[in-house]
Amino acid sequence: MVRKMVKKIVEIDELDFKILELLQEDGRLTFLEIAKRLKLNESTIRKRVQALKEQRIIKRFTVEIDPAKIGLNTVAIVGIDVDPPKLLEVSQTLCEFKEIRNVATSTGDHMIMTEMWARDGRELTKIISEKIGVIDGIKKICPAIILEKLKG
Amino acid sequence: MVRKMVKKIVEIDELDFKILELLQEDGRLTFLEIAKRLKLNESTIRKRVQALKEQRIIKRFTVEIDPAKIGLNTVAIVGIDVDPPKLLEVSQTLCEFKEIRNVATSTGDHMIMTEMWARDGRELTKIISEKIGVIDGIKKICPAIILEKLKG
Amino acid sequence: MVRKMVKKIVEIDELDFKILELLQEDGRLTFLEIAKRLKLNESTIRKRVQALKEQRIIKRFTVEIDPAKIGLNTVAIVGIDVDPPKLLEVSQTLCEFKEIRNVATSTGDHMIMTEMWARDGRELTKIISEKIGVIDGIKKICPAIILEKLKG
Amino acid sequence: MVRKMVKKIVEIDELDFKILELLQEDGRLTFLEIAKRLKLNESTIRKRVQALKEQRIIKRFTVEIDPAKIGLNTVAIVGIDVDPPKLLEVSQTLCEFKEIRNVATSTGDHMIMTEMWARDGRELTKIISEKIGVIDGIKKICPAIILEKLKG
Amino acid sequence: MVRKMVKKIVEIDELDFKILELLQEDGRLTFLEIAKRLKLNESTIRKRVQALKEQRIIKRFTVEIDPAKIGLNTVAIVGIDVDPPKLLEVSQTLCEFKEIRNVATSTGDHMIMTEMWARDGRELTKIISEKIGVIDGIKKICPAIILEKLKG
Amino acid sequence: MVRKMVKKIVEIDELDFKILELLQEDGRLTFLEIAKRLKLNESTIRKRVQALKEQRIIKRFTVEIDPAKIGLNTVAIVGIDVDPPKLLEVSQTLCEFKEIRNVATSTGDHMIMTEMWARDGRELTKIISEKIGVIDGIKKICPAIILEKLKG
Amino acid sequence: MVRKMVKKIVEIDELDFKILELLQEDGRLTFLEIAKRLKLNESTIRKRVQALKEQRIIKRFTVEIDPAKIGLNTVAIVGIDVDPPKLLEVSQTLCEFKEIRNVATSTGDHMIMTEMWARDGRELTKIISEKIGVIDGIKKICPAIILEKLKG
Amino acid sequence: MVRKMVKKIVEIDELDFKILELLQEDGRLTFLEIAKRLKLNESTIRKRVQALKEQRIIKRFTVEIDPAKIGLNTVAIVGIDVDPPKLLEVSQTLCEFKEIRNVATSTGDHMIMTEMWARDGRELTKIISEKIGVIDGIKKICPAIILEKLKG
Repeated sequence: MVRKMVKKIVEIDELDFKILELLQEDGRLTFLEIAKRLKLNESTIRKRVQALKEQRIIKRFTVEIDPAKIGLNTVAIVGIDVDPPKLLEVSQTLCEFKEIRNVATSTGDHMIMTEMWARDGRELTKIISEKIGVIDGIKKICPAIILEKLKG
Repeated sequence: MVRKMVKKIVEIDELDFKILELLQEDGRLTFLEIAKRLKLNESTIRKRVQALKEQRIIKRFTVEIDPAKIGLNTVAIVGIDVDPPKLLEVSQTLCEFKEIRNVATSTGDHMIMTEMWARDGRELTKIISEKIGVIDGIKKICPAIILEKLKG
Repeated sequence: MVRKMVKKIVEIDELDFKILELLQEDGRLTFLEIAKRLKLNESTIRKRVQALKEQRIIKRFTVEIDPAKIGLNTVAIVGIDVDPPKLLEVSQTLCEFKEIRNVATSTGDHMIMTEMWARDGRELTKIISEKIGVIDGIKKICPAIILEKLKG
Repeated sequence: MVRKMVKKIVEIDELDFKILELLQEDGRLTFLEIAKRLKLNESTIRKRVQALKEQRIIKRFTVEIDPAKIGLNTVAIVGIDVDPPKLLEVSQTLCEFKEIRNVATSTGDHMIMTEMWARDGRELTKIISEKIGVIDGIKKICPAIILEKLKG
Repeated sequence: MVRKMVKKIVEIDELDFKILELLQEDGRLTFLEIAKRLKLNESTIRKRVQALKEQRIIKRFTVEIDPAKIGLNTVAIVGIDVDPPKLLEVSQTLCEFKEIRNVATSTGDHMIMTEMWARDGRELTKIISEKIGVIDGIKKICPAIILEKLKG
Repeated sequence: MVRKMVKKIVEIDELDFKILELLQEDGRLTFLEIAKRLKLNESTIRKRVQALKEQRIIKRFTVEIDPAKIGLNTVAIVGIDVDPPKLLEVSQTLCEFKEIRNVATSTGDHMIMTEMWARDGRELTKIISEKIGVIDGIKKICPAIILEKLKG
Repeated sequence: MVRKMVKKIVEIDELDFKILELLQEDGRLTFLEIAKRLKLNESTIRKRVQALKEQRIIKRFTVEIDPAKIGLNTVAIVGIDVDPPKLLEVSQTLCEFKEIRNVATSTGDHMIMTEMWARDGRELTKIISEKIGVIDGIKKICPAIILEKLKG
Repeated sequence: MVRKMVKKIVEIDELDFKILELLQEDGRLTFLEIAKRLKLNESTIRKRVQALKEQRIIKRFTVEIDPAKIGLNTVAIVGIDVDPPKLLEVSQTLCEFKEIRNVATSTGDHMIMTEMWARDGRELTKIISEKIGVIDGIKKICPAIILEKLKG
């Protein structure tokens, strides 16, 4: 039960934080634009961003899409109960579905929490019943509809 | 109870979809790189991405960060119960906190669902008690810890 | 705690049942059409339907509308928790809203169960927060979205 | 995950709304009576009602019955948990029972919500145990009794 | 779904009510004692009590015991989840256990509610695991301990 | 936290148990009848029953009534949430209502559990709202209807 | 259901209580130190502590460890649902795991309550899925993370 | 939201682990006894234990008591809901009660989890109502009784 404490030393300083904040607001900023805002030279920023990516602090550059704008009107947080020994296997399988945007194991009412995007309630019902529900080890699927996203 | 049906006509075709998929995977792709992959010319891609941004289909370009890598070891999905007439006001207020990454109104066990990032359980307890808990209209705060994020 | 048993004597026979079943399927059937199907004369049917209305067995003739077809895409079963002494008063108030189609007191997770029709999640959030939530005595509002109505 | 947005254009104007409201209050109104109230001629109303039926905006003309008046004293909202891949199949099967008035898939505590009418608690227990409970794929049945219907 | 209303006519008047109230307070009262208190003659009371028993209004004369006084310190309200088609069969089986004082089907969180008396928590655990838990069709057993009985 | 263990010595032997079992089945048995069944003399039984009453092992002789037979068709197990410092006071107050048959403090979903008898759902709603709900300190009232009593 | 009351007579007096309180605060106190504080001689204390151990009032002398200080950052209260007839067997099996610090049967939402210590959420997920989840008879595992231990 | 990662370097090696395991099993072991078992000399052990105490890895030496053996028959895990801004203040207050053995903030159904020891259900009810319930900021108290402790 007792274990050797691993030493964790990650050097993240104020400059890294500022770069991350700028890139979260606009992931398309060039190194030059970031450099200007922070009053530093471009090569410094380039090296820092490179390091943040190599350390996997930045997992990826991406775009945030508004699902309703592309006809996906039903966004749901879907809790999933699984047979405990199949927890990891089922979680991995869920990651493969395009309709499922997020997958996490959690300590809430359900061991797995996902976010699903569907055209409407009818389509969500079909995804739950015909695509997700048939995965071996899944026992119960509990969707909660997102009424309105205000942030994130 | 009956209302005039608003006509919704959004022209999103296969090309838009492909561009969105590429940008979700790598938000730093240049128009030229996208053009090459889709065997189209750069100006077509530029116009399309511009349109996707103007229609607010692309909400923003951003970076996905790994919270644990910057010392934020406790990620929680936090349900919040509010006094019903204060639902929208409280939701707006929650958006202003840097510790809160997502805010949505929902039909689950709690009317508001958020995602919070904290250094550890002790800090999360403090945020809940001293920062979020004092907002007028909040009645109950129910955190569930994310054990492991597998997607999103 | 013990009370005089009220004698209840309602004469509903097989003919009444058949008439009710026909009218549930098509509330626009004329007395003549009903009479033909049941091989009886029109005046018998007329008297029976009249009696069913007078005894309040038939509460009203009405139409079933498909909310999605008139732009009301979000249908929700909404449980409402109230301050117990305000249960009846709040229930009465809820009946006055056009957005609320059904109101009942119940023994489920919530003392009041309603059905609400809204254009989308955003509008439902507004109704809950700004219209229903401000009613004195309401403590918690718990919506569950109807994904698909298969009967009724 | 992204899809072509289907154009939905349904022409429902103020007149249609007024007709629907009148018919919900009294489904037996003749076209002439509706015409008089709205100060229009009968043929206009006839065409409109015809169109509302053809577009399936009006699903059916029907009667609302008071179950207690015909000896059905126990009305219950019954949540049903099913094995996820059997969700649609079970929902369809439930629609065939006369004791079950409504069937819907939902995001509440249970994936299927129904309304059942029974003579008393003893009969409801029998329906649940002997009729509904034997359907393959049903795992849990959770009845909540309607104490009093105030609207709908 | 509609049925013939059975006429129920039970003649219970004020006198019956008074007799029932006296007998609930003291089930050992003689007919003579009841007669004196109500200022009637003994034979009237005898006939009435006889009728109350024949109509099964009085189910039985009994004694209320204080379980803690005979070493049964753990009284629990125990909810039981069953496989729905086995609801009635399991309910019947539960009635045969001496440790189980009450059995009812219910619309609460559990379809069957029972009251169990045990010497202590250890014995209750054993009853649940080894006696009740092995009954075919039982899926979950949820005990809640009675801290103090104030009435009944 | 540690306390002096009170010595509890109650002499309940096999004979007491047999007497209690006979009286639970039929509380009207005379001492002579009990004596005959147990092959003892009447004075032994008289002394034993007297002792059982004096030690408050027998709390009272009473009758079990069938509520439905006297027009009380709605029997409910009603959980009550109270403001914690008013727990004992509210429990005492609830004992005074004739409609409430049992009152206990409990470790279940609600701190107070009661059993209520009412004529129908409408009357139960009134009792909850107008009689019980107005008691100071009560926050939530959760009724579950007894569908059928099989024992006790 | 009625049983012979076992006489329980344990002689624990004020002196025993004081000794227990001192040892809970510091389990390393020598008999002499305890004797001085309580102004008694050492042999009295020695005999008393000996008796407390023999009567199993003191179950063991031990140390309280801070898990976070040895790299075990995730402490969870984990509720476990089991197939009822396997309750005792599963409970015994759980006691054998070093990651599980406490095991108790309970009347809460889950029949078994445990406390688990893990390095982080990822490791807890693995323990739940691969070590605990495979135990025959376990149906659901519900972890709740301890944010901060303030006492005990 | 991003922060400087604090470097945590704690040197816990295999020897420390073995010492901790021995002391958890028997907190009264002398340094000499530990030294013999681990085949080391006494001064090494003395220094190590001293360091473990100084680093607060060992929080305290203590004794585990069996509450039932000293007349405390009711051990409960008690969840407590608080007004969020009073979370830390209430948690601190709860630590001061001798009846409360453990206090932790948690992500389960309740923000505060405690363990309470009482003589019986009646005393637990009193503690909850009269001692804990009157603390300002406490909204709901949910006890679950420990039926049997198998470990810890």
